[in-house]
Amino acid sequence: MKKIQRLFEIDPWKIATSTLDKENRRLQESLTSIGNGYMGMRGNFEEQYSGDHHLGTYIAGVWYPDKTRVGWWKNGYPDYFGKVINAVNFIAMDLYINDQQVDLAKVSPTDFRMELDMQTGILSRTFTVSLADATVKFSFERFLSIVKRELALINLEAEVIEGHADIKIVSKLDNNVHNEDSNYDERFWEELSQGTTADFSYLTTRTVENNFDIEQFTVTSAMRHDQAPEASIASELCVANTFHFTGDAGDTFSLLKEVLIVTSRDVPAHDHPAKIAELATLYAGSYQSLREEQVNAWKARWALADVIIEGDAAAQQGIRFNLFQLFSTYYGEDERLNIGPKGFTGEKYGGATYWDTEAYAVPLYLALAKPEVTRNLLKYRHNQLPQAHINAQKQGLAGALYPMVTFTGIECHNEWEITFEEIHRNGAIAYAIYNYTNYTGDTTYMKHEGLEVLTEIARFWADRVHYSTRNQAYMIHGVTGPNEYENNINNNWYTNKMAAWVLRYTLENYNKFNKDTTVTISEDEQAKWQDIIDNMYFPEDQELGVFVQHDTFLDKDLMPVSELDPKHLPLNQNWSWDHILRSCFIKQADVLQGIYFFGDQFTKEEKQRNFDFYEPMTVHESSLSPSIHAILAAELGMEEKALEMYERTARLDLDNYNNDTDDGLHITSMTGSWLAIVQGFAQMKTDHDHLGFAPFLPSTWQSYAFHINYRDRLIFVSVDDTTVTLKKISGAPLPIKLYGEDYTLEDEVTAAIV
Amino acid sequence: MKKIQRLFEIDPWKIATSTLDKENRRLQESLTSIGNGYMGMRGNFEEQYSGDHHLGTYIAGVWYPDKTRVGWWKNGYPDYFGKVINAVNFIAMDLYINDQQVDLAKVSPTDFRMELDMQTGILSRTFTVSLADATVKFSFERFLSIVKRELALINLEAEVIEGHADIKIVSKLDNNVHNEDSNYDERFWEELSQGTTADFSYLTTRTVENNFDIEQFTVTSAMRHDQAPEASIASELCVANTFHFTGDAGDTFSLLKEVLIVTSRDVPAHDHPAKIAELATLYAGSYQSLREEQVNAWKARWALADVIIEGDAAAQQGIRFNLFQLFSTYYGEDERLNIGPKGFTGEKYGGATYWDTEAYAVPLYLALAKPEVTRNLLKYRHNQLPQAHINAQKQGLAGALYPMVTFTGIECHNEWEITFEEIHRNGAIAYAIYNYTNYTGDTTYMKHEGLEVLTEIARFWADRVHYSTRNQAYMIHGVTGPNEYENNINNNWYTNKMAAWVLRYTLENYNKFNKDTTVTISEDEQAKWQDIIDNMYFPEDQELGVFVQHDTFLDKDLMPVSELDPKHLPLNQNWSWDHILRSCFIKQADVLQGIYFFGDQFTKEEKQRNFDFYEPMTVHESSLSPSIHAILAAELGMEEKALEMYERTARLDLDNYNNDTDDGLHITSMTGSWLAIVQGFAQMKTDHDHLGFAPFLPSTWQSYAFHINYRDRLIFVSVDDTTVTLKKISGAPLPIKLYGEDYTLEDEVTAAIV
Repeated sequence: MKKIQRLFEIDPWKIATSTLDKENRRLQESLTSIGNGYMGMRGNFEEQYSGDHHLGTYIAGVWYPDKTRVGWWKNGYPDYFGKVINAVNFIAMDLYINDQQVDLAKVSPTDFRMELDMQTGILSRTFTVSLADATVKFSFERFLSIVKRELALINLEAEVIEGHADIKIVSKLDNNVHNEDSNYDERFWEELSQGTTADFSYLTTRTVENNFDIEQFTVTSAMRHDQAPEASIASELCVANTFHFTGDAGDTFSLLKEVLIVTSRDVPAHDHPAKIAELATLYAGSYQSLREEQVNAWKARWALADVIIEGDAAAQQGIRFNLFQLFSTYYGEDERLNIGPKGFTGEKYGGATYWDTEAYAVPLYLALAKPEVTRNLLKYRHNQLPQAHINAQKQGLAGALYPMVTFTGIECHNEWEITFEEIHRNGAIAYAIYNYTNYTGDTTYMKHEGLEVLTEIARFWADRVHYSTRNQAYMIHGVTGPNEYENNINNNWYTNKMAAWVLRYTLENYNKFNKDTTVTISEDEQAKWQDIIDNMYFPEDQELGVFVQHDTFLDKDLMPVSELDPKHLPLNQNWSWDHILRSCFIKQADVLQGIYFFGDQFTKEEKQRNFDFYEPMTVHESSLSPSIHAILAAELGMEEKALEMYERTARLDLDNYNNDTDDGLHITSMTGSWLAIVQGFAQMKTDHDHLGFAPFLPSTWQSYAFHINYRDRLIFVSVDDTTVTLKKISGAPLPIKLYGEDYTLEDEVTAAIV
Repeated sequence: MKKIQRLFEIDPWKIATSTLDKENRRLQESLTSIGNGYMGMRGNFEEQYSGDHHLGTYIAGVWYPDKTRVGWWKNGYPDYFGKVINAVNFIAMDLYINDQQVDLAKVSPTDFRMELDMQTGILSRTFTVSLADATVKFSFERFLSIVKRELALINLEAEVIEGHADIKIVSKLDNNVHNEDSNYDERFWEELSQGTTADFSYLTTRTVENNFDIEQFTVTSAMRHDQAPEASIASELCVANTFHFTGDAGDTFSLLKEVLIVTSRDVPAHDHPAKIAELATLYAGSYQSLREEQVNAWKARWALADVIIEGDAAAQQGIRFNLFQLFSTYYGEDERLNIGPKGFTGEKYGGATYWDTEAYAVPLYLALAKPEVTRNLLKYRHNQLPQAHINAQKQGLAGALYPMVTFTGIECHNEWEITFEEIHRNGAIAYAIYNYTNYTGDTTYMKHEGLEVLTEIARFWADRVHYSTRNQAYMIHGVTGPNEYENNINNNWYTNKMAAWVLRYTLENYNKFNKDTTVTISEDEQAKWQDIIDNMYFPEDQELGVFVQHDTFLDKDLMPVSELDPKHLPLNQNWSWDHILRSCFIKQADVLQGIYFFGDQFTKEEKQRNFDFYEPMTVHESSLSPSIHAILAAELGMEEKALEMYERTARLDLDNYNNDTDDGLHITSMTGSWLAIVQGFAQMKTDHDHLGFAPFLPSTWQSYAFHINYRDRLIFVSVDDTTVTLKKISGAPLPIKLYGEDYTLEDEVTAAIV
């Protein structure tokens, strides 16, 4: 059995604990992260904490190209490793009692409570400390407004419980931060200016120069409090306001800190002071009114997105945590942004945009947001088409190669085996265009931007294949499939499948829409593509009846994960890279990812044989893995396996399955638990312009229910142990399928669970 | 045809030119490098030169672990990239005429001559410049003593040709140097002390701190001149002595600079002053006497090593250049050292020790030096056995894995595909033990150190293979063969061959010498090894009749290099790494390397078929490639190809075949031209304890001749167009073979060329 590590209480709406777990502060911090799409932070304490932890505040779209170099540099390697960077720590409020600093790493609190309320996005914390002959209870509450995105609020209340306390509060905007993943501990920020006006203390910093012609970002943070500071103190990269309260047992005090954050992404640096002033007026309001606005805004989000599970409180908490963190990262407001794999919860993985968005996030946003949100995600890639050309050119290839990791469209992850080889990502970009078009029925994107992107991706594949005379077939050598535990393999079934599909899908749509598009594909080029489609090589094993992950996979020493001593898991923390690459163990769905994407092309028997062959060798050490397996297991009626995989995706971070949540949450895979329920348990299918369901209920659950948007309808789906009910909340009647039977959804359709 | 670039005159003993080629100063500098095994330098000018060039002085065994990092770090990656570092520039002598600086980048000389005399190791240069109303002719002569290894001498003569000249000379020890291959331009040296005593000006510097617990090296350089300086000037990392000479047309002056270099490798830092004083006394002598000593010492080297070619002056110059540079790098005096791939001529490739030593250098040193020299090279590896264990452990494997690149025995090249995958190097370490034992007949090394090393290498292989149930065979996945233009391939024929051979050879010698050795190999382990030997998988293609480079090589788009547009060559400068990896083009002998090593195991037909299949796809972009092909082509009677390959190995640097000599010479492949003549044209074979020859003469040559040491005999071999003559210069009679016929070599044996 997998080891799990569960730090927080099971609760339907809260991430809460009464334990200050000094051994696991990093993990606690990750799990209490908050964000509003514009900025976010790990669950750091406001006051000084000297124990092991990871300070992290991040601002969307603000990054730095970190220099990196290894061994001998070769032609085509990316120049830098783009990184999300730790930004100004604006929640900082150091506390002193009778001149002694409150530091929970040194003085243990007599009570402690921390709660992240997922229903409202408000993080609160209370603790009582005895220090310097006084006992004081502190209560913090903070949130990042999802209505006023540049606004953060931190409210502090204190009560003297015993003795006489002189309480000093040093409230800071502190840009003395570093990136834990910085190569060689370099700092990424320099100060431009700071000061204190009648209204605000402010700090303006800029990312330091780089050698790669990458934009330097300027960030201005400004703070004001609900009372005047005693003093303002300037120091390098930091401005502080101090406050004093004096009292005896029973006395209470409070301090409200309002922070505004403006960046050069939105406002030229010289206009920051004016923008701050403008926002200060625009965003004025009492703490209670701003808080209420926040509560209502989250309420509206949940009204559409919530998944209600009865009978399994851990599962319920898991899905809500994932939806909460996903929406805290991205809710589609800014088309220049994408969904970073760590969101605002950590630094790992650097870049902001991965194929995760297209493969895992798009289906969720299609169902839980307006079509414009997905369209913005697609446009993001269309806007980066020129850079995708450059990526392909760097490899000497035609067409467009979308990056593995990027901020600008240019590849910024320079481990070559990922950059050069994991080219299947190009297929996912195309697949998302299919997904959008098929789900929404809207062909306007396809006709214009879509075909431009598809054609250039197709040109890449047509140049990237080679013809093997010996095999009389087109092959793709030297790739890394979705299973990143192998590199430089030949004829990855998934990649070959994707490449052939892109060529076919592009030709189909070109033929359908060539009157509407500016794209031209010559007859010769079409013929060449058709030849590749007709003669692509797909490794299969007749005897086993499976698609083969790649040419020599079956020559490995094949064994199930169950035969491994569990002490070796996770492999990526215990084995050398060399050992991992040679082993048969699979990080995440690879052949099965293809079967998931193209589910209508395979028989149930084919699905079953491949699942039975590959899943037992899969270690699920990618956060992207369990959801795909949950969906397929559900389809195959393997309820126990489906539920196991659901739990693993839904509580991956809450239970720290892969022992790596301490450095941040797995944001882009948070869609996985939703996919597992909706596409898995409920078997929602949308292919061929048709919506259908075939739900089952996990035996340990009492019921589950969710909403989806589909082609201008809002539909509520609920499943209990006897009945599935589809309710149309809004929109026109819709033909649907339930367990393969055709219905028309007028107001409600019910059917018995099969 | 290959483009060549030839900067120097064809001359049997000299590397000379009358052209100051400002466009190609780097290439000129590489080709006029000198060294004495203890230190060396590129052919930099003594005086300031502001044009594009590459300043480089290197001290054997002095290195620095440069930090390096890329993408995401994985378990088992080496921590640093060890680099040979640029050290104190002690030849520096800036020149001024009437206060204007002589800088040949700015003032073109009216005559210019530079000559490296390979017979003596003396580099001389004369030039005349007109500057500030005067014309002066300068002549420099410098050498690094091969008798007094810490000693360097630079002699300057000047003659006023026209006008009145006030000549100022600023003679320096200048450690303001950097490595061109330093990641991020970091400096590697700090100053400890400097000063001027009655006898010397000195400068003591130390390599800066590092984060890897690697020794910091201290180097003291000291200089004195044959006249007292006018002044001594101290500056950061530099000490200078100034001299003035004033004269009119016809007046001459001279200045002799003597330099001593002492390092903490030999003498603790606090004893450097005393050591300098001691050496100053010990090494005292007139310039003429020291120069004569140098001339005689090189004469003695050449008496044994020279290869005389008549009828092809370019070929003659090539072989001498290679032997000269090889011996300038390593002549076996210091068993802690090895043969760096760039010697003292550049920074590229970083580390000091590669498998090149065992595969390419050992055969030459066996024939051209006392057996102790080779034994020292073998002991170097035995001494590093503990570190080789660590390298294997880092990959989770048993036994010993010798490093790809190292200074200490610990792997210090951190491009993972090389570090983790190019494990065939472990076979070469074993092969050198065979080579030494077989060539010398001395089994004492085998009995003790040899079997210890072999056993641990064998244990590595036995753990590194895996059993493929499907194929009922042992396989080796995830390697890079000698052809570094492919990575992460499976069942590289060469690697599998090497692994099986090591296991067999180790067992054979264990059974032969187990009474003498401390090594124990259990019955079970022996049985396991035998099973691997008996069931190793070797890819072969029956139809083509060739051994297959690796599992999927034949699926590539196969085509000869001749079909490539020459503008793509060299591939490594024109193609992306990805493109190179996927192509069929071979960097250097791979299958053919195995056929070369185990020549007695294959029929001539097998050799021919494999040569004909692989050579046309080989781009020879490794300096190690042409020699092996020359040897095999010679054996197969392909005289034209053999000569083409000989020229490419012999004049690789002199003709800049791969367009990469500007950053240094290819030292470890310099044995290749000797191997091509001795093992190729002369077909010297030593397997099965038997010396034999089967020479032919390239049709464009008149004759060639060389000496070899073999089992206490000195033998002179000469070949002309009719006759091969073997003369025994010293030692007991010896049974030999000539063209397969048995002879006893008493004094002389002759035979007609077949």
